[in-house]
Amino acid sequence: MTVRIGVIGTGMIGEEHARRITQQLTGGEIVAVTDVNQEQARAVVDRLGLEAKVYEDGQALIQAADVDAVLVTSWGPTHEEYVLGAIAAGKAVFCEKPLATTAEGCRHIIDAEIEAGRRLVQVGFMRRYDSGYRMMKDAIDGGQLGEALMVHAAHRNPEVPERYVTPMAIHDTLIHELDTFRWLLDDDYQSAQVVFPRKTRHAHDQVADPQIVMLETVKGVRIDVEVFVNCRYGYDIQCDVVGEEGIARLPEPQSLQFRQAGRLSNEILQDWKQRFSEAFDVELQAFIDGVAAGRIEGPSSWDGYAAAIAGDVCVKAQESGAIEAIEMPERPAFYG
Amino acid sequence: MTVRIGVIGTGMIGEEHARRITQQLTGGEIVAVTDVNQEQARAVVDRLGLEAKVYEDGQALIQAADVDAVLVTSWGPTHEEYVLGAIAAGKAVFCEKPLATTAEGCRHIIDAEIEAGRRLVQVGFMRRYDSGYRMMKDAIDGGQLGEALMVHAAHRNPEVPERYVTPMAIHDTLIHELDTFRWLLDDDYQSAQVVFPRKTRHAHDQVADPQIVMLETVKGVRIDVEVFVNCRYGYDIQCDVVGEEGIARLPEPQSLQFRQAGRLSNEILQDWKQRFSEAFDVELQAFIDGVAAGRIEGPSSWDGYAAAIAGDVCVKAQESGAIEAIEMPERPAFYG
Amino acid sequence: MTVRIGVIGTGMIGEEHARRITQQLTGGEIVAVTDVNQEQARAVVDRLGLEAKVYEDGQALIQAADVDAVLVTSWGPTHEEYVLGAIAAGKAVFCEKPLATTAEGCRHIIDAEIEAGRRLVQVGFMRRYDSGYRMMKDAIDGGQLGEALMVHAAHRNPEVPERYVTPMAIHDTLIHELDTFRWLLDDDYQSAQVVFPRKTRHAHDQVADPQIVMLETVKGVRIDVEVFVNCRYGYDIQCDVVGEEGIARLPEPQSLQFRQAGRLSNEILQDWKQRFSEAFDVELQAFIDGVAAGRIEGPSSWDGYAAAIAGDVCVKAQESGAIEAIEMPERPAFYG
Amino acid sequence: MTVRIGVIGTGMIGEEHARRITQQLTGGEIVAVTDVNQEQARAVVDRLGLEAKVYEDGQALIQAADVDAVLVTSWGPTHEEYVLGAIAAGKAVFCEKPLATTAEGCRHIIDAEIEAGRRLVQVGFMRRYDSGYRMMKDAIDGGQLGEALMVHAAHRNPEVPERYVTPMAIHDTLIHELDTFRWLLDDDYQSAQVVFPRKTRHAHDQVADPQIVMLETVKGVRIDVEVFVNCRYGYDIQCDVVGEEGIARLPEPQSLQFRQAGRLSNEILQDWKQRFSEAFDVELQAFIDGVAAGRIEGPSSWDGYAAAIAGDVCVKAQESGAIEAIEMPERPAFYG
Repeated sequence: MTVRIGVIGTGMIGEEHARRITQQLTGGEIVAVTDVNQEQARAVVDRLGLEAKVYEDGQALIQAADVDAVLVTSWGPTHEEYVLGAIAAGKAVFCEKPLATTAEGCRHIIDAEIEAGRRLVQVGFMRRYDSGYRMMKDAIDGGQLGEALMVHAAHRNPEVPERYVTPMAIHDTLIHELDTFRWLLDDDYQSAQVVFPRKTRHAHDQVADPQIVMLETVKGVRIDVEVFVNCRYGYDIQCDVVGEEGIARLPEPQSLQFRQAGRLSNEILQDWKQRFSEAFDVELQAFIDGVAAGRIEGPSSWDGYAAAIAGDVCVKAQESGAIEAIEMPERPAFYG
Repeated sequence: MTVRIGVIGTGMIGEEHARRITQQLTGGEIVAVTDVNQEQARAVVDRLGLEAKVYEDGQALIQAADVDAVLVTSWGPTHEEYVLGAIAAGKAVFCEKPLATTAEGCRHIIDAEIEAGRRLVQVGFMRRYDSGYRMMKDAIDGGQLGEALMVHAAHRNPEVPERYVTPMAIHDTLIHELDTFRWLLDDDYQSAQVVFPRKTRHAHDQVADPQIVMLETVKGVRIDVEVFVNCRYGYDIQCDVVGEEGIARLPEPQSLQFRQAGRLSNEILQDWKQRFSEAFDVELQAFIDGVAAGRIEGPSSWDGYAAAIAGDVCVKAQESGAIEAIEMPERPAFYG
Repeated sequence: MTVRIGVIGTGMIGEEHARRITQQLTGGEIVAVTDVNQEQARAVVDRLGLEAKVYEDGQALIQAADVDAVLVTSWGPTHEEYVLGAIAAGKAVFCEKPLATTAEGCRHIIDAEIEAGRRLVQVGFMRRYDSGYRMMKDAIDGGQLGEALMVHAAHRNPEVPERYVTPMAIHDTLIHELDTFRWLLDDDYQSAQVVFPRKTRHAHDQVADPQIVMLETVKGVRIDVEVFVNCRYGYDIQCDVVGEEGIARLPEPQSLQFRQAGRLSNEILQDWKQRFSEAFDVELQAFIDGVAAGRIEGPSSWDGYAAAIAGDVCVKAQESGAIEAIEMPERPAFYG
Repeated sequence: MTVRIGVIGTGMIGEEHARRITQQLTGGEIVAVTDVNQEQARAVVDRLGLEAKVYEDGQALIQAADVDAVLVTSWGPTHEEYVLGAIAAGKAVFCEKPLATTAEGCRHIIDAEIEAGRRLVQVGFMRRYDSGYRMMKDAIDGGQLGEALMVHAAHRNPEVPERYVTPMAIHDTLIHELDTFRWLLDDDYQSAQVVFPRKTRHAHDQVADPQIVMLETVKGVRIDVEVFVNCRYGYDIQCDVVGEEGIARLPEPQSLQFRQAGRLSNEILQDWKQRFSEAFDVELQAFIDGVAAGRIEGPSSWDGYAAAIAGDVCVKAQESGAIEAIEMPERPAFYG
């Protein structure tokens, strides 16, 4: 069985996902696309040589009889509407982050999905599919570190555009860590604090950069994440998990070691798309396989909701400078 | 278009390749299998849930109308016969190493393929598809190292069984390096020498272990390869290319870095199948894509022949202790 | 000129310093020793083959005409008294940390030293003499990192004895970092916060372990230090300085890289004395050379005082859980 | 007791040794110097503030009543004469490599030293005092690797001057490895072979560069050493010892790890004096201590002789291209 997929939003990430499904992955086929810019949608169909119909809008695409599953890769504020539409149509939907731009929006989706009676939504938290994080998860779950006590992490980008402002350090950047650590530690957050180091001269006026976000989990694990989006030197994701019996560090991306010009060196990547390229493949393959098997198992609406709640508190903590409590509602048995 | 594939030889590697094509890769389907042990062939069909016919023998499978391409993963001495059969039938064939057990056998295949008028054969030298070696190839071809001058390499296995005897260090182990360096350096060999260090206490009586093979290329690059098949500590492939402008080292396989029990450490793999797991995927996908596109581009019969010739001289050098010349026939324009 | 040195306190560190001066360093000679346990003092004289007189008490030793300089390596609570005695006698004094057990005690020493009109005191903050930290200092001072923005650090011990209680994580462990970062960044602290992660099962009842201390400097640098004194795996000092133009990491202690038993590994030290062995040599040589040249230049009384003030606030922050202000008095021109 | 030392030859290395002894080491004092260029000798006395007499020539210095021990750091061809002079005068002598420019010259020294009845000569093979090589020696002697089977080594310089010609790759460069591996493995050589890879474009006309020297020891250990003296990127000493139970690699020199400008990198040194700076300190301190204790224990005349014999055969192997036998005379019990 081939899963017939419709793509809502054919910008960079939408096109890239369509390309993966068409050229690299197995079991899926793009049969429908749409975008607010219909010409762009048509251009993607041409570039990738798809046999796909171009729809006028997302809801029409969702309703199409030959669409088994939907990819939501449109502008963030439209995600909630399309995910709800897919659920209403009883169709599986893969939604890039954010699931919705507000925690309330996420809650609507959760309510609808529970109402529908089965999991239909997978959220695009691709790090869960990264081979390095998977090794880390295995080490923790296998007890190699004993109980986890602390996480030291960093999320660094070489630079960000003018439109990137302080709260985006949470909603656009930290959001990945917010999901990753819940999953990695099998835990939830109970508080957040944000401190602002001296600002780098490379940051624009409207962004406090770097920031350090400190999280505490229900189990008492303390997490510090450096978010530094104008670090200049590269795109760099660091994660050390400190446990009772030892420490594990996330692998650096594979690269040649050079001896050249007075330096012993390895390349550092510049682009997040390259860093998580394989993770995107594995993530989407998991979605396609899940749809085919009638069993979606990746990051759920609940995970999207939890990240949204934690994100909102982190932004509050950015503003207050205080330690802010994170209160997660009780998890419905549906997402047990 | 789906490439319909028949598998001759359903031992470990044959089953593994069938599994890859069925579960991980795209564009191929196993429609036919055979093995000297028919029950095993049937068992593989069952285990993988294939819709594939079990044939009585390889030639029958090759002749089957619905078989577009053939995988030869049978016992080495049978390779030549099946590859020749596939060529005669005008069908693409992927052949695990060795292409044939003798250089003469490889030459027969070359003659047949040239006669057929187009490339039909891809030889299973998977290292060319390993991401680390690809990085190395890119660095060399991109001029980052200047002209290559030396290669220091090692091929280490934790242990080998009793039946592994001295010449197998060439035919079964070094064979991969013999292909890899020709490809990496875009060069051919002109001499070989083998020296035997003090023998490890962990080696069986019938194998001199370790060995050091020293190769000289036509361009004058000097290559030394340590072959050490009872090194105990792991499966470890090392390769440093020393150029005029610097040195590049093959990446270690990705792993977590641990701080534990007084050691800062990374795991070393124990199994070659794990080490080159992704390379096998990429290699077979390239074959399937090549068949679909009507353009086989991976390691050719000529590459299989060149490795066989170099291998034979290395075995002679094992016996003589002398520097032995490697004489490659002129390369037909067909393989240009 | 040979500097004639008297040692007050011949416990482990006192004996070790006497040994260094006698056997490894140049320009100094131990001519006098004392200890609350006179027999131990005599035993050290014998073991090291010193030509040194054993004095009844520290003040008598300080007064001895042939003693040019004093080493205070006695029990912490006695440091203040002996340092003040040495200053009163106009003699140079090297004092192991703490300079005094209270900030007020340090202040008395400062007042006395200023009164004396010249620097007489060097405090035993040996990290300033560690080759790795010196490289870091050079990189920062040389502008290689741009302005420093953050420091991520860790101070880990394999285990601590029963008598080690929560505040000792500051006074006995973090004290080194408190001095190091002031020196490294050429900066002072303005606030401290301490958080307690989930406690390791390897910690005794009376110690909260691990702890994370977060410091903010006057220039706005944010420092996080993990203090983990029952980490089991080794004695491990980590320090990353994150600057506007890049990041530098403190070198790991030199060790062989092994490939063995499935691991690629380096040894991690277990003992702080081994970790900073060379730093102790350089530190004491600097003191001896300083005395000979009439110019003490190492960590000053003011540095000891600053570390004591910051340490007191960190302990307060351990208790309050709040962000506590660190107020440093104005630095006298004398220590400019 | 202070060892009173006379220095013959106040060029770069002689001045450097005088400086070490005066400023860094303990127990030694420079009381006499000489050089073919007397003005230079006087300039060194001034620069270092020595209280040393400037002698007309080396033999006069050796005879001086207040000279306990001699440092021979003059031009290589004069070494033999001064070492013989010191032995005749019954004085300890530290001689920079080479001990003599010919094996016969070394043999004369050995005969004279045996005649004198006690060890008086220490040869300047400083690598035996390098902390990294010491760790390697300890690992081998402690049985951590099982029996050593192979050594893979490299000796790389960024560049060499015009006067550096092909045989100097042995006599000036490989000479250190020739001593080091005998000591490290507690073994002697039985054959040598030299092969010449493609030449780097950065080498002058009169030098074949790089070279690979392959040595076989009496115990059967196979050693390959890449000598590459125009490698451009730095001064780099590599050494892997492959044993039955694992492999150990010499540590890289300590340096900061940087994340900067798209590279994760460590500095590579450019200068051999910096690489072995500490080893020179330890080496000379051992000599001074040995003189004071009346027991010279460092690299002996026999070691200098063995390196000279092996070096001569390596040069022969450069010329012949053949595997050349190395025949060491029986070791006198005197050097047992």
